Amino acid sequence: MKVSELSRASGVSIPSIKYYLREGLLHSGTSTASNQADYDEDHVRRLRLIRALIDIGGLPIAGVRGVLAAVDDEGTKMHDAFGAVMHGLAEPPPAEPPRDVAAALAEVRRWLRARGWRIKSKAPAPHALAELIVTLRQFDFPVAMADFDAAADAAEQSAEFEVAYSLAKPDRTAAVENMLVGTVVYERVLAEIRRLALEAVSARMQSNKR
Amino acid sequence: MKVSELSRASGVSIPSIKYYLREGLLHSGTSTASNQADYDEDHVRRLRLIRALIDIGGLPIAGVRGVLAAVDDEGTKMHDAFGAVMHGLAEPPPAEPPRDVAAALAEVRRWLRARGWRIKSKAPAPHALAELIVTLRQFDFPVAMADFDAAADAAEQSAEFEVAYSLAKPDRTAAVENMLVGTVVYERVLAEIRRLALEAVSARMQSNKR
Repeated sequence: MKVSELSRASGVSIPSIKYYLREGLLHSGTSTASNQADYDEDHVRRLRLIRALIDIGGLPIAGVRGVLAAVDDEGTKMHDAFGAVMHGLAEPPPAEPPRDVAAALAEVRRWLRARGWRIKSKAPAPHALAELIVTLRQFDFPVAMADFDAAADAAEQSAEFEVAYSLAKPDRTAAVENMLVGTVVYERVLAEIRRLALEAVSARMQSNKR
Repeated sequence: MKVSELSRASGVSIPSIKYYLREGLLHSGTSTASNQADYDEDHVRRLRLIRALIDIGGLPIAGVRGVLAAVDDEGTKMHDAFGAVMHGLAEPPPAEPPRDVAAALAEVRRWLRARGWRIKSKAPAPHALAELIVTLRQFDFPVAMADFDAAADAAEQSAEFEVAYSLAKPDRTAAVENMLVGTVVYERVLAEIRRLALEAVSARMQSNKR
């Protein structure tokens, strides 16, 4: 298909497509005799992935490039590729966090060990969680790691289904891409469901007063 | 305290503090004889709230301004204020969504009615959820609204606790601020726990192969 058709099929504007081509996020189309490029369904899918990472995952272009490199690197083992795309979704943790964050990080690591969750040392998530805990405490929320056990149990159950679903994909790239889309999109789905629940419960609890 | 002490206490740089003052996000300090301004704990707390909205919630400055106006408007009823801050966390939904999003939105609204969740028509969350469902389907994830029932049950239980906790705060501003921080921070907490669960499960399921 021509670039105009690619734009229609993917919902991405032609200037954005040209920008992603220049930035190397989207692989070139096949050159045709008429000095045009020919694109296919892989391009449509890749454009949707780029848009999901930017619009839903909130990644900057450099972040998208890093994550896509991990998706495309056929040389890495599947689990390492899963890790690379997940770690690419966030900034790398600072080498020396402030003292309160370092203390919360120690709590998070103890909790992870107690759960038997093996997490790579360069993963940004434990550090991100420690920062969030510090923020909650600054606002006087009482926070203990045990408060997160129920959410962690639910997340683990859902992750078993999601990882198995991704591993069942026909090829490595499809599996990694699936894991990536699932991670970015489902966490937003859960956030939106939480906002809806808060609004609904607030309406119910306050309907007879104030 | 002086602006340098405010910066130290809040962890926000002096140029950023001056920017928030100019933009009207932070109320001025009390003028002192020496032509300086004097700040207090309310300023520290407000700066932390601004940083949480920007760093964790990903809001632009205009979004922060809108949300803070809803926090500070003592004239709105508590539930309306809860709604205003929650709705201010996202872009307003488009009046005419594309056809596939409109179809998914109809599914979302039916599901909300069946759950008995009363959601205001201008809430962005149902529309955001519809867009996410369309994205999942474009990537061949089989999605039915019933898949979200377990997450919605858990979110509702947690929301009952969170709304009651906010309503128990001593004054209206503290209650709304608490609801806002809880919404923005806990949804990131759950997202980080999900990422950790995915990495842990991926490590376990793939440790003996590939």
